[in-house]
Amino acid sequence: MEEKRPLILISNDDGITAPGLRVLVEEMSKLGEVVVVAPDSPQSAMGHAITVTQPLRLKENYIFEGIKAFECSGTPADCVKLALDKICTRRPDIMVSGINHGPNYSINVIYSGTMSAAVEAAVDGVQAIGFSLNDYSASANFEYCRPFVKRIASTILQNPLPYGTLLNVNIPRTEHIKGIRICRQASAKYAENFDERTDPAGRTYYWMTGKFINMDADDNETDLWAIDNDYVSVVPTKFDLTSNSVIQHLKHLLP
Amino acid sequence: MEEKRPLILISNDDGITAPGLRVLVEEMSKLGEVVVVAPDSPQSAMGHAITVTQPLRLKENYIFEGIKAFECSGTPADCVKLALDKICTRRPDIMVSGINHGPNYSINVIYSGTMSAAVEAAVDGVQAIGFSLNDYSASANFEYCRPFVKRIASTILQNPLPYGTLLNVNIPRTEHIKGIRICRQASAKYAENFDERTDPAGRTYYWMTGKFINMDADDNETDLWAIDNDYVSVVPTKFDLTSNSVIQHLKHLLP
Repeated sequence: MEEKRPLILISNDDGITAPGLRVLVEEMSKLGEVVVVAPDSPQSAMGHAITVTQPLRLKENYIFEGIKAFECSGTPADCVKLALDKICTRRPDIMVSGINHGPNYSINVIYSGTMSAAVEAAVDGVQAIGFSLNDYSASANFEYCRPFVKRIASTILQNPLPYGTLLNVNIPRTEHIKGIRICRQASAKYAENFDERTDPAGRTYYWMTGKFINMDADDNETDLWAIDNDYVSVVPTKFDLTSNSVIQHLKHLLP
Repeated sequence: MEEKRPLILISNDDGITAPGLRVLVEEMSKLGEVVVVAPDSPQSAMGHAITVTQPLRLKENYIFEGIKAFECSGTPADCVKLALDKICTRRPDIMVSGINHGPNYSINVIYSGTMSAAVEAAVDGVQAIGFSLNDYSASANFEYCRPFVKRIASTILQNPLPYGTLLNVNIPRTEHIKGIRICRQASAKYAENFDERTDPAGRTYYWMTGKFINMDADDNETDLWAIDNDYVSVVPTKFDLTSNSVIQHLKHLLP
């Protein structure tokens, strides 16, 4: 009996033409059959938005030779929902998202379109990994990410995670990577979030900006520490947001 | 020395004219000084999207008599970021979001604009609660939510939650509420997500739809059970997504 190659679904939030996506497509093609459904335009910071008040479009795209690929008018989460329902003819063995042009460590995970695509797959019971490179520059080099992307995806294909869990992988901006660290996400927040300006008509407007504050500095178990120290960070991430430790406390407060 | 009344920041995802917001404003005015910063248009299912590629606008709005209120061109998370940075002259004692026109129980929490506003406040260290009514109908009755909204917000004002935690409150569609239940979120997902149609030009398009599948049916510790049984569900929710239980397992797989 012929064994089928693993089916690997790929999406991202930077859009179907992003260089990080191409690296992911090439590496995943070594591990199995690849299907791409990615946004037709950049969708950064879309969080877990889905499109409910507009219809969605899918269009076949031939930029990856020999690979079935579609561009989608929706968000990263929309892409994965559509792929699983309408494009994949069998269930994917794994879904990978990225490689994002910029990091998604620490609290950034909740704003991340890259991770929302992976979370969407994981909720549906598909193994999932979000990959991000800690480099916003236009000349960001995704090449040295290749062995890490392949090794981590291959490991999860062979050793599936329990339902409810996926991986958030961040790759540091250095070709001299020391290795992989399994981490928790660092506790962090943003302060001084807006730059206030006046438009030519005299009206005020605001640009989002903000100073990142790491409240876990010096803790070497966090993703921020790993990246700052030239390690690839791997954070096992979940989508059940229940704070179980607070349940008993609340039962006394709100009987 | 005069003691200041608590400062209560309010937002939502249905927009500044939503009836659920008005109920929240009226009830919170009984507990403290209210400031409203809400989207200028509906923002349902925006997840934790933030606006990074467009500037944002704020406009004062006088629909709530005697209440400082602004409409914002951004997402619910944008509203809270702007409110904390540019509108609130002191730190809010609590931030409440809603009352959403429709439920945000179980896995819906990750798609919810209502909850993303509350999460944004909680990340910044402000006590936060998202309120939702399990009723999508145009004639949804928010009146009977009043005592529950007031009681829960008042309890949290007097007994702050630990950093990293907020509340997700869902109110059932019945005036005969049996009480409050502290719950975990039910494990659930959507299936058969899209309705495929053809437009007048012969091109395919897709509407998001989907059948909700409760994988925790019969478990009476979940929010879905509570709502189905006429209780208000209160789920303590967190925004650190690390799956701590999987960290050791992964350390063996990816040494």
